[in-house]
Amino acid sequence: MTQLDKSKESLHIGFGQINPTVGDFEGNYAKIISHIEQAEVQGVELLIFPELAVTGYPVLDLANKASFVAKSAQIVDRIALKTKNLKVMIVLGAVTKDGKTLRQRSFNTALVLHKGKIIHRQHKTLLPNYDVFLEEIFFEPSKKQRVFKVKGRKTGVGICEDLWEDDYGQKPLAGLARLGAKIMINISASPFHRNKGAFRAQLISRKAKQYGVYFLYSNQVGGQDELIFDGRCLIADAKGRILFQSEAFREGLYTFVLPLGSKAPLVKLNRAQAETQEIYEALVLGIRDYVRKNRFERVLLGLSGGLDSALSAVLATDAIGASNVLGVTMPGPYSSPGSREDSRRLAENLGIEFRERPIREIYDLKIRAIIEKKRQEHASVLEDAKITLAMENLQARLRALELMYISNDESRLLLTTGNKSELAMGYCTLYGDMSGGLCVLGDVYKTEVYRLAEYRNSISPVIPRESILKKPSAELRPDQTDQDSLPPYEVLDEILYWYIEKNKTAEEIEKLAELRPSSELIRQVIRKVDHNEYKRRQAAPVLRVTEKAWFGRRMPITNRFDIGGP
Amino acid sequence: MTQLDKSKESLHIGFGQINPTVGDFEGNYAKIISHIEQAEVQGVELLIFPELAVTGYPVLDLANKASFVAKSAQIVDRIALKTKNLKVMIVLGAVTKDGKTLRQRSFNTALVLHKGKIIHRQHKTLLPNYDVFLEEIFFEPSKKQRVFKVKGRKTGVGICEDLWEDDYGQKPLAGLARLGAKIMINISASPFHRNKGAFRAQLISRKAKQYGVYFLYSNQVGGQDELIFDGRCLIADAKGRILFQSEAFREGLYTFVLPLGSKAPLVKLNRAQAETQEIYEALVLGIRDYVRKNRFERVLLGLSGGLDSALSAVLATDAIGASNVLGVTMPGPYSSPGSREDSRRLAENLGIEFRERPIREIYDLKIRAIIEKKRQEHASVLEDAKITLAMENLQARLRALELMYISNDESRLLLTTGNKSELAMGYCTLYGDMSGGLCVLGDVYKTEVYRLAEYRNSISPVIPRESILKKPSAELRPDQTDQDSLPPYEVLDEILYWYIEKNKTAEEIEKLAELRPSSELIRQVIRKVDHNEYKRRQAAPVLRVTEKAWFGRRMPITNRFDIGGP
Repeated sequence: MTQLDKSKESLHIGFGQINPTVGDFEGNYAKIISHIEQAEVQGVELLIFPELAVTGYPVLDLANKASFVAKSAQIVDRIALKTKNLKVMIVLGAVTKDGKTLRQRSFNTALVLHKGKIIHRQHKTLLPNYDVFLEEIFFEPSKKQRVFKVKGRKTGVGICEDLWEDDYGQKPLAGLARLGAKIMINISASPFHRNKGAFRAQLISRKAKQYGVYFLYSNQVGGQDELIFDGRCLIADAKGRILFQSEAFREGLYTFVLPLGSKAPLVKLNRAQAETQEIYEALVLGIRDYVRKNRFERVLLGLSGGLDSALSAVLATDAIGASNVLGVTMPGPYSSPGSREDSRRLAENLGIEFRERPIREIYDLKIRAIIEKKRQEHASVLEDAKITLAMENLQARLRALELMYISNDESRLLLTTGNKSELAMGYCTLYGDMSGGLCVLGDVYKTEVYRLAEYRNSISPVIPRESILKKPSAELRPDQTDQDSLPPYEVLDEILYWYIEKNKTAEEIEKLAELRPSSELIRQVIRKVDHNEYKRRQAAPVLRVTEKAWFGRRMPITNRFDIGGP
Repeated sequence: MTQLDKSKESLHIGFGQINPTVGDFEGNYAKIISHIEQAEVQGVELLIFPELAVTGYPVLDLANKASFVAKSAQIVDRIALKTKNLKVMIVLGAVTKDGKTLRQRSFNTALVLHKGKIIHRQHKTLLPNYDVFLEEIFFEPSKKQRVFKVKGRKTGVGICEDLWEDDYGQKPLAGLARLGAKIMINISASPFHRNKGAFRAQLISRKAKQYGVYFLYSNQVGGQDELIFDGRCLIADAKGRILFQSEAFREGLYTFVLPLGSKAPLVKLNRAQAETQEIYEALVLGIRDYVRKNRFERVLLGLSGGLDSALSAVLATDAIGASNVLGVTMPGPYSSPGSREDSRRLAENLGIEFRERPIREIYDLKIRAIIEKKRQEHASVLEDAKITLAMENLQARLRALELMYISNDESRLLLTTGNKSELAMGYCTLYGDMSGGLCVLGDVYKTEVYRLAEYRNSISPVIPRESILKKPSAELRPDQTDQDSLPPYEVLDEILYWYIEKNKTAEEIEKLAELRPSSELIRQVIRKVDHNEYKRRQAAPVLRVTEKAWFGRRMPITNRFDIGGP
């Protein structure tokens, strides 16, 4: 952003689109200060950081640990002190405590700092309490709105959910408007999901127009456990036109000189990212931050020769670099020779370390022992020839044994590679392929896995064609394919989308699904999803990229309701 | 309860202290009808079932599945129809939908049925939104209170949390009092934790006195995933005296003839159960219901010779019978001969099936392979002699492999046997001893494990003395004991109690802990607890018996806050 002429009729705005780490007060402080110093040099007049910039988001139960709240207040004071002699006015979020409240909970607060003083304080009014958000548990809501002045203009601040007032009885933005606010600021920690960016821009545009105000929207960037924040700070004018948008998924200081009162020049938005590219970049960020913020340097993952593990390996490589990724192929009794070859080729293409650890010998030993035991115990019920589910799971678990050994031995984080369609249907093995510290694709439907692979190969063809083209198979028995147990993925994923993300009944899905699955199939799928809750309850954290990922769902394990029933 | 004289000056009350199953509408319907028919025969005038008796509790996201809500309404109608010609008035809970609400959520409702009609409806006003409860997510709150008449007396109904109005701005009981209620009914699904029964009785007594009313309190019984409901329906008079209490942990119709308006005879309460006995009975119920309601018949568990697995086996046997329990001892390279013998003796004492599956052969094979690989790959960094953490974990995972094979092969639910102190400190192996469908002792501190064992042995001495007396050890390396890695359990458990259950800071614990642990030790323990969040996130459901079990805590995995720091 070039340094434009600044009159009283313009406001030089900066967004500190930072990537804080939960609980890393010193690190977050350093980030904030460095952005403030940069902004001051550039002549920024109003610098806006995200919600809970000081503490990271979400803090969950930490919000009510006394030492955590004290540290948050202390950091705010240190920032104020540090900026005593600067011109820039700063908006940022922190956890605060404010006298006695009935429930003794903290506040999620926006603070405005200027010349070393806290000149304005606004607690969050609307506390989201659904899906992945449970802020009613952790925070006390604000009961009132107040305004302060920016360049003589009345300005109000809201925090994240306060923007989504249409869903609530209480309307914080309307409150600010009644107080005469001409500028509204919203500081957010609003996590990404598919199409969230466009949805949010639309809402901000609508709200700016509704109240006839400049709307300045700040959002954090980065990964925190399952959540991925996409940034994309925004400015809208009183006509609802988006004047500015910062980049997605990238930390930085983004500045814009807003011409107040005059006609604003319409700024071309950064190209809208294609949906698939957006998800790809989100996953890369999610992996990188989970690994780095948890102080791992290196990861490993099992390479089956299939597409899920191949894509996971590519994402991991893009996230933390080839030299930090290890791929392990573990051929078993029913692995195709192609699988091993495709894995090796992928590793070569990526330049990652590659090891081979066959599970065959131990599998044979165990199976022989099992059969021998059976022979001794119930000589008559012997079924050597049959490959049981227990034997299939045994193969998956022997692989986990190998991977977890390496993980422990070399301090490498194990990445889990199953996709959302599999997790939905329980087409995965507890303590087998479900093992790992982070599940990369657990919120990505199988059909989306194909799109992501094609997208990534369009940049450089790293994933072997064979891994994309071959029929998906767990290779746990001879000539097995996923479609022996599951409906075609296009059909399955459509049912899953309507059931999981849109909470539709079987009857509704029958009408909504474009691929016209049978009523019987829809019911089978729904039953499977519900029945497999117990597996997902023990799954690794899953990076969230859809509107409803697993940890935003809350279903009982013990549940006899046949939701697919009549 | 004998059939007493019933005048207008008395009210024959029944409590349908049932054990419903979530989503089992037909089963719950049958239970309700059978209790109604029994009550009618006995001359009960007012029969009170628990909160959400029709659906089971908690229903979580099921509350907003359209087909679930429809079914709930249909069952209520069927109950009304079925009781058209009966005299008894019925109070019960169901999920209902009531026109359009802003958030489109359902209500948690108390319904009063009489002679085939719904004569009163009261939605839950206070929705608990903390710890294990998240009802704000699922339900819409009631905004108003109404009363109806029982034998000419104004009567109000509240639901569970409505009783705990002191913690809220809104006071539903006060509202009922203002409407002139002389009888207050509360239908609950209030889960057990240590001392909860006494705490609840105290509160009910106080509320009865505060409003000068008869207080009729109904609670469900049974296990649902992690939660265990203890029943203990209560009647208090206007002076706050407890006139009646039903049994804990036992399903049944409990009746009492309440002398209205005259002096009530003080009824002797069922003997207060000792704290340890209470926890023991809760765990037995929790296991039984998890197994049965999830349609398992049999369980298995690994027997290490230690006390945790021994106690788990005894609890399982008491819960579902010796013939359904299998104990497996899996001696490894560092198992003491005593361990195997103690396990065998325990199994004999209990009369459960016992198998021996040594892991030594496979362990040796794997270790040889690993060392061989290391030799090939980095000939110089060879450390054959050292038993690494990876090797310890490998032993635990080889045992899980055995147990899960049997679990899959024989459709037996695997019980996990680790205790709360271990889970807190991460002194357990993911995909190893943490494997299983239900964690029996995960909310029981190690010191409480000893008390439970002594309590059970005082009934019949099933647990070998050696298992109680020997030093706790994971036996994953020679001469290992828990106290090599952990502080003495008395000290540890006290710190854990204050930190986890009471959310105290390190400084506060220093002052509070009677065993005077050092400031440094307290901080070490707190750090360990926080650091091991990632393990617990993948733990099996843990039966809850304290005020704060793991799933009622919400801590980020990615968390750099050093809560033990200065």
